[in-house]
Amino acid sequence: MRRALDAAAGAAAAGEVPVGAVLIREGVVIAVAANAPRTLADPTAHAEMRVIREGAALLGRERLEDCDLWVTLEPCAMCAGAIAHARIARLYYAAADPKGGAVEHGPRFFGQPTCHHRPEVYAGIGEREAAALLRDFFAARR
Amino acid sequence: MRRALDAAAGAAAAGEVPVGAVLIREGVVIAVAANAPRTLADPTAHAEMRVIREGAALLGRERLEDCDLWVTLEPCAMCAGAIAHARIARLYYAAADPKGGAVEHGPRFFGQPTCHHRPEVYAGIGEREAAALLRDFFAARR
Repeated sequence: MRRALDAAAGAAAAGEVPVGAVLIREGVVIAVAANAPRTLADPTAHAEMRVIREGAALLGRERLEDCDLWVTLEPCAMCAGAIAHARIARLYYAAADPKGGAVEHGPRFFGQPTCHHRPEVYAGIGEREAAALLRDFFAARR
Repeated sequence: MRRALDAAAGAAAAGEVPVGAVLIREGVVIAVAANAPRTLADPTAHAEMRVIREGAALLGRERLEDCDLWVTLEPCAMCAGAIAHARIARLYYAAADPKGGAVEHGPRFFGQPTCHHRPEVYAGIGEREAAALLRDFFAARR
């Protein structure tokens, strides 16, 4: 989670909502990315989407059942859907997101009958630092 | 929808689940794509995601509030989330998807309080042909 938090801090410096993600396979980091929809002019460029796409490209396959995803914020519906499509084994996230989260809020996607893969989910690791990054970012913009 | 259905037929020929999408801006087609997660080794490469990313790259911005999206199948949670993030104005889809759809099934994402943009939604246009493409594709694989 340390590397995901560092990526999130980098996003804030670039004027992006500070969220970072890391993809791990067999104990090795294979992708690190920050949230970058503005910078990349791509509404799908959330940190989770970026590491999933990068990891899949690297491994040359659409299914990442041997990979774990670490992210500093509770994934939204788009990212939760992508995590299910990619068959991610374990999802670790830091801060909860009552406004846009789709794991423990809103659609609670992994509990839906239309969700075809549910990763193991571990929440709260690094929560305080992840939430502080977001709070400081939005406070500075007001 | 004609061009989306043709893209879907092309996907089937490539061994991909036949779904096609088209992005329209001011009456002009700016992106056409088929579902291609296997071909591209990218679990996020649904037809909708591909036209949204392509359209955003073309216009150089993350918000596509002046664009309409046409797709042959009810979007899943990932794609519905991307449609909301991209601020797509109108969504037209052909066949409903009780197994994986997230508009009128499962999470019914656009009705969630965590959804921050709801496009106008029009369903059923070209439904029979879109459903037949999917039915024939899965029948041939059994």
